[in-house]
Amino acid sequence: MRQNPERRAALLDAAIEVLAREGSRGLTLRAVDAEAGVPTGTSSNYFAHRAQLLVQILHRTRERLAPDPADLQGPLDTKVLLGHLLRRVRAERSVHIAMLELRLEATRRPELQAELVGFQGAELEANIAWHLENGLPGDRQGVVLVYLAMLGLIVDDLTVPGLLESHPVEGLIEAMVERLLPERPAD
Amino acid sequence: MRQNPERRAALLDAAIEVLAREGSRGLTLRAVDAEAGVPTGTSSNYFAHRAQLLVQILHRTRERLAPDPADLQGPLDTKVLLGHLLRRVRAERSVHIAMLELRLEATRRPELQAELVGFQGAELEANIAWHLENGLPGDRQGVVLVYLAMLGLIVDDLTVPGLLESHPVEGLIEAMVERLLPERPAD
Repeated sequence: MRQNPERRAALLDAAIEVLAREGSRGLTLRAVDAEAGVPTGTSSNYFAHRAQLLVQILHRTRERLAPDPADLQGPLDTKVLLGHLLRRVRAERSVHIAMLELRLEATRRPELQAELVGFQGAELEANIAWHLENGLPGDRQGVVLVYLAMLGLIVDDLTVPGLLESHPVEGLIEAMVERLLPERPAD
Repeated sequence: MRQNPERRAALLDAAIEVLAREGSRGLTLRAVDAEAGVPTGTSSNYFAHRAQLLVQILHRTRERLAPDPADLQGPLDTKVLLGHLLRRVRAERSVHIAMLELRLEATRRPELQAELVGFQGAELEANIAWHLENGLPGDRQGVVLVYLAMLGLIVDDLTVPGLLESHPVEGLIEAMVERLLPERPAD
């Protein structure tokens, strides 16, 4: 397998665009070559088979979606951070739609599902730990509930963007944080 | 177009299974005929084209997912109702995975997206009105936030079922309702 990291990243970014535009059944090594504008056969020098490509796309989405370090400077405020998250989702629609395609593909491929569970599970635990270590308001369960509500909001924002027009997302994020992550546990 | 309602429903149920198992690109009128065990060409007597089939699948999913009237008898409790909802999701996985496929297909087909927005928007408004009319605790914004958190929970439960193993869903539903739909608005 070839190892040029920049070429690999460019092929994975092309794969993300194919996945978002055509769906998972449209994702072939040949389609990735065409999207990346490289000679047919290039992708097969980097990925042994489609299953390996899928797992590497998953890892690449995480690189693409890492928070901007500048957003984590200064006083931390969960409402502001979630606003940044939604802005990044909207700026990187293809990456998020590709992720939803990978989730659906995982319902049909146990090895991809195992990878996805490990990956998303580690990310959720890291988020919880980060939130608590930084002394932000709210408890472990509140962070999980905010994660779920934001996942629902992102799925709607990507797939039925007109749905929440009568429920402005800024107000939803504000109420979500105030109710799920109160200063003292809601017990 | 043929009008036998039972035959039509059986073809739509077959289409839901194809969509869940093969993804949206695997959904052809021919595949629906094969899944339903009817002669090739039968589906094209019921659906003028694939786009019409997609819209009718959407309507059929709603029939399949209507709450059990027995669940709405007796004293209403949002936690109990959400528990019933999750049980129905797990009993009808194909229908929900098909719905996620339709959501992704809608990102590529404006006419399907318009239909989906109208449909889901009406359902959300009906849920809010029902909740408030029945005098259940919580306000309009709380009902929207519970809808989003349950959507996130359902997406995870369908696609990465191992993810929430360390966060039992019963506890999440309980905390979600207590925090998002308090007895008096959280102002």
